[in-house]
Parts: sequence; structure tokens; C-alpha cells
Amino acid sequence: FFLTINSKTLNPEKPCKRLVLYYHDILFNVTNSANATSANVSNPLNNVLGDFNFGMLVVFDDPITRDQNLMSTSVARAQGFYLYNMKSKYNAWFAYTLVFNSSEYCGTLNIMGADIIEQKTRDLSIVGGTGDFFMARGVVTFSTDAVEGLGYFRLKMDIKLYECY
Amino acid sequence: FFLTINSKTLNPEKPCKRLVLYYHDILFNVTNSANATSANVSNPLNNVLGDFNFGMLVVFDDPITRDQNLMSTSVARAQGFYLYNMKSKYNAWFAYTLVFNSSEYCGTLNIMGADIIEQKTRDLSIVGGTGDFFMARGVVTFSTDAVEGLGYFRLKMDIKLYECY
Amino acid sequence: FFLTINSKTLNPEKPCKRLVLYYHDILFNVTNSANATSANVSNPLNNVLGDFNFGMLVVFDDPITRDQNLMSTSVARAQGFYLYNMKSKYNAWFAYTLVFNSSEYCGTLNIMGADIIEQKTRDLSIVGGTGDFFMARGVVTFSTDAVEGLGYFRLKMDIKLYECY
Repeated sequence: FFLTINSKTLNPEKPCKRLVLYYHDILFNVTNSANATSANVSNPLNNVLGDFNFGMLVVFDDPITRDQNLMSTSVARAQGFYLYNMKSKYNAWFAYTLVFNSSEYCGTLNIMGADIIEQKTRDLSIVGGTGDFFMARGVVTFSTDAVEGLGYFRLKMDIKLYECY
Repeated sequence: FFLTINSKTLNPEKPCKRLVLYYHDILFNVTNSANATSANVSNPLNNVLGDFNFGMLVVFDDPITRDQNLMSTSVARAQGFYLYNMKSKYNAWFAYTLVFNSSEYCGTLNIMGADIIEQKTRDLSIVGGTGDFFMARGVVTFSTDAVEGLGYFRLKMDIKLYECY
Repeated sequence: FFLTINSKTLNPEKPCKRLVLYYHDILFNVTNSANATSANVSNPLNNVLGDFNFGMLVVFDDPITRDQNLMSTSVARAQGFYLYNMKSKYNAWFAYTLVFNSSEYCGTLNIMGADIIEQKTRDLSIVGGTGDFFMARGVVTFSTDAVEGLGYFRLKMDIKLYECY
């Protein structure tokens, strides 16, 4: 018998799994190599293309915690990069993996999408998963939770999976 | 009761949604910061690895229009990057988000894949979506629509979704 | 009638398609432009952030073979990039496309995920496909098969698709 994909229904309000996590990014500034968790690796454009870091590409290995405290035990690492891409405002784009390796979860979630910073919340796609998140898909909602100059920012990541196996 | 995924059928000729859009890229050349929509951010290799920009990585925030005219009202932005990756010919790779924020659509489509420029058409994957495109998947077919030196090119993007919710 | 996605079952042990392939990477070192298949394009951080190439971003167009021999006929190309992202050990992140263009397969597989080098095997996500791999999804298991200094490494890629159309 045949069944077309269109008969599937997914309800945005009813994820099959949900996790709320916090992402902490400490940008390398030459003097903070002990604490830094990310670094700009692009050729500096010196803001000739606007005043909002257009083209800055930041590689990160950032801690993920269950609460807002940077010093809490990390429950995962976020590994990948973000880049800034607008001339007229701060606006970013992310591609990264959440790497879980704890007693609770072992596996990864792979994520990409636009981080439209001016919006209070913005959605990125969870495009795949492995291990305990085998073949998962979903949406992660970002909201900015703290910003301290260029040196530190914290994102709330509201992770909603709609395909769980 | 159990149903395996393999009983799903998808027909390449029958997307559940289709959009034909045009992508315009104006590369920053030091003098055109007012009009530029993209910039090379990689460490220049000065073409020591072939003559086709191997390693050039371009961050963009490019307008998307319904017709071929760069001056038409944009219906979305394309935000992300492309890079050149062959020694023997022009060949690229894209990862980006189509950001829709109009009366017609609000949401994003996340896309990645090889842009095999020598082929008349080439297919990339739509790996996820949000908002009006919640959990979408599909294929986008690129074709080069115009090239003006290194400064401007236009792609036709034939977007076909096969998973719609 | 309605059917929720959760009724789908996928068995990690029973992919609908499986391919074992080898990936060969020869890093550009200024003197080997004839043989090099990849190049570092990031702004060098000179290892100020640890001793493990943090921030190094490598663009590649790498041959893919059916056996371990670099000189075997390539059955595909791997096009995209990897980056190193840890201060305390070698650890990488990949996003790339397998481009098949042979009598056996024509099409692409799009892949992203963490390459946690210290693990004997690690899983990345196959997030989409085109052509003969239309709309495919799955998991690719990496294992390091050979390392020769910084100049050459070979990965075994065990490709398992769980959604085939």
C-alpha cells in the first residue's frame, strides 16, 4: 500500500522532545586565551562594509548549561561557527553541533540557520541527530539572554524535536 | 501498529510547494561599500592553488526577487556564505538561509549543497524550515542567470518542497 | 485520516542503503599545489588559542575512493570545508557535499556534524540528497584510517541512509 508524506501531521505546539539550554560565548581578545571559547578567524574587513562586523567569522567550542550560570556544569558543548552578515545592524548566521556526552544523553544534534538578532526570538533548524538523537529533526528557538560588550554573550536555546526515533 | 518510513513515496515531479526566485550577489571591491551585498573574508591565497579562487569564502546578505530585476522589491534575503573549492574550474559550495518577512511569507528555509557551476542546473538540499515553512524539506535547483565579471552574478533558484506541514 | 510522524520506526541496524567510502585530504603547504586537494583559508591565529589549530578552516575538493588507495579511481568528490575548534586537543567540524557523477550514481549527499577525533568512531548527519539520492537522510560514521603529519589524512566514511525514495 502507498502512503504519501503529506498525510503526516506535525504540531508546532507538541514536540516529541524538548530541552531548554543556555549557550555561553567568550570571544578571544588576545589577552584571554585561558577563558576564551571562540575566536574570529576571518580576514578583518575593518568595518569598511558597515559598522556591524560584516564578514566576521567566529569558530567556537562553547559550553552549554541547564541554567544561566556560566560556571554551572556543562551538559554539552556547542561546536561550529557563526558569522555576522549585515551592513546595517548586528545579524548573524550559525551552523554547529550540540555534542552531548553525559549520563543523561550521548549523541549530537546538528543545527543551522539565521540568527536575526533584532527579533526577540528566532528559529533555526535542527537538521539531523545521532546517538540518543538518532535521525532527529526539529526547531531551536534562540533568544538573547545576556550581552557584555563584544566579550561575552549568552543565548537561551529552546530545543524542540518533532521527529524522534 | 507499525509503519516503516520506506512506505513513504515522494515524486520529484510533484512538490507540495514551489517558488521560483532570483538571487543577486554584488561582491565588495573596496570602492562599492554602498551597493555591495557580499564580501570575501578568507585569507587570500592569491590563486597559488589554481586560477579559480580556490578557498575564497564570501559572506552575503543578498536580496531575493521574484523577477530578474535587481531593482525589484526583494521578497526575501539570502544570508550565509559560499566558497570556491576547485583548482581547475569555477566551482562553489553554499550554506545559507532564505529569510522571508513579507505579507506573503514569514519564516525561513535552510539550504546547503554543491554549486557545480559547469552544470546548466544543479540541485542543493533544503534541509529545514521555520515559520510558514515549519519543518519543510526539499530541493532547490540553481541555474546561472547572469554573470558580470567578478562583481555581480544572478542565480535562478527553483525551490521545490516535498515535505510541507 | 491522520497519521502522526511518531508512528514511524527507523532501525539503526537496518539502513535502506549503505556505502563504505574513503576520503583523502592533502593539505596545501605552499610547495605542493599540484597534489594539494585542500587549503587553510582562515586568518592564522598562530596557535595562541591552544596548540591544536583552533580556528583553522580548510576548504577542500577531496577525492573519494572505494578502497584505501589514494591512487584508485575516485567514485565521488567531497566538496566543502572542515575547521578545528578545540584548545585542548585536535577536534574538527565538517560541512560538505559528496558529489557522485559516475555510471553507478549521479547525485549528491549533504553532510554536517562534529568530527570528535578522539573517539574511534563518530557520527555525522546526512541532512539531504539530490539526484539518485533524492531527499535522502541518514548518518555517516567517520573513523580515522591514516594520518601522515599535517600533510595527509584518510577517513573511512561508513554511509548509512535511513530515508530512501
